[in-house]
Amino acid sequence: MSRESEFQAVARELGYDFNGELQKGGNYTPWVRHAGQVYVSGQLPRVGSEIVGTGHVGSAVTLERAQLAARICVMRALALLRQSPGGLDALRCVPRMTVYVQAAEGFSQLSEVADGASELLWRVLGEAGAHTRTSVGVAQLPKNAAVELDLIAAQD
Amino acid sequence: MSRESEFQAVARELGYDFNGELQKGGNYTPWVRHAGQVYVSGQLPRVGSEIVGTGHVGSAVTLERAQLAARICVMRALALLRQSPGGLDALRCVPRMTVYVQAAEGFSQLSEVADGASELLWRVLGEAGAHTRTSVGVAQLPKNAAVELDLIAAQD
Amino acid sequence: MSRESEFQAVARELGYDFNGELQKGGNYTPWVRHAGQVYVSGQLPRVGSEIVGTGHVGSAVTLERAQLAARICVMRALALLRQSPGGLDALRCVPRMTVYVQAAEGFSQLSEVADGASELLWRVLGEAGAHTRTSVGVAQLPKNAAVELDLIAAQD
Repeated sequence: MSRESEFQAVARELGYDFNGELQKGGNYTPWVRHAGQVYVSGQLPRVGSEIVGTGHVGSAVTLERAQLAARICVMRALALLRQSPGGLDALRCVPRMTVYVQAAEGFSQLSEVADGASELLWRVLGEAGAHTRTSVGVAQLPKNAAVELDLIAAQD
Repeated sequence: MSRESEFQAVARELGYDFNGELQKGGNYTPWVRHAGQVYVSGQLPRVGSEIVGTGHVGSAVTLERAQLAARICVMRALALLRQSPGGLDALRCVPRMTVYVQAAEGFSQLSEVADGASELLWRVLGEAGAHTRTSVGVAQLPKNAAVELDLIAAQD
Repeated sequence: MSRESEFQAVARELGYDFNGELQKGGNYTPWVRHAGQVYVSGQLPRVGSEIVGTGHVGSAVTLERAQLAARICVMRALALLRQSPGGLDALRCVPRMTVYVQAAEGFSQLSEVADGASELLWRVLGEAGAHTRTSVGVAQLPKNAAVELDLIAAQD
């Protein structure tokens, strides 16, 4: 299956549409390309005007819900990469993904939340989904979102 | 207006001087250049020996004060870029800026804080101020600073 | 002394062994190399199955213990760089290191924690240990670890 077909299959399974313009929350650029790398801005689990998963993970938000939020964040990142020159097919690896979890006191399953995003990188990009990752639990995220992530994708 | 003139105009408006040596707080390097990119270390809102804006944003620190802190952080980053080979004029874009806000419980206007820094990138660098951004709210920052940010700037 | 000898000397002083496979905690890649840079995933202070230093720094964990944790994190990063093509000898600089400290309320000596890692970069790599750094205090880290860090190392 092509990367595009896989992307659309995941979108259907999640029940969200990642085509069209993706809203952002400030005075910056969704992605910047330099020297064969595409830097993607921090993505919230936003679909249309809705944030899927608000509150702190481990109290208001369950692990499963946070994993869904992480999946939506990474699909937004992939949707932006689709719009960059070369699209999904030009990607060779993802040198960095950083996953920020809005964590309740004592919640340390941050890697488990981030695995939601990692799985989809592998699924959509295959071997080119190879990525390093850092997962941390922060005090607050924009819009009270449960998860935010950013990444750098590399083309040849 | 040249980038240098704009930089100096902003400094005058803020009422701070960003010429000369900028103090740092540890055993690292203010900036490192590799493959046409200049990585700038995490900048606190420090002017001389003063930290402008200490405490948690949303309780001890207002949004407006935090935006000022963000402006000072990014002016420090620009001041370091001025000192790197090629200076401000060599810059073509800012592939990544990460803004860390020392956030009080329930304060989620992190993008609004970061907009203080983003505005100045656009103002000083013009189109070359194009940047991706990630804003998060953390528990603590060095010196109890309200804001810290780092960035990567790209030359051609 | 060669970088390899220095690396082994530090390992002996710390009393830990960084040879062999290093355990990771999720569905990602320990390092990714692209365009002369090696991105290393977030490293916990893990030795074998033990996390050295769990809890929040400033309450359950002392500054000294957190510095030890930071040293172990950076030794793991160096151990991974040893396994990448060219090994330690190919490294020319470390464009970015980000140090996340699981910080108790009111603990802001984050730079002092990070200095534990910075010292070892300089000691093992010499001038090639030149690095930018960002230190922040986060709410939670995976496995309740006191410290996590990631970095980007550059080859020529």
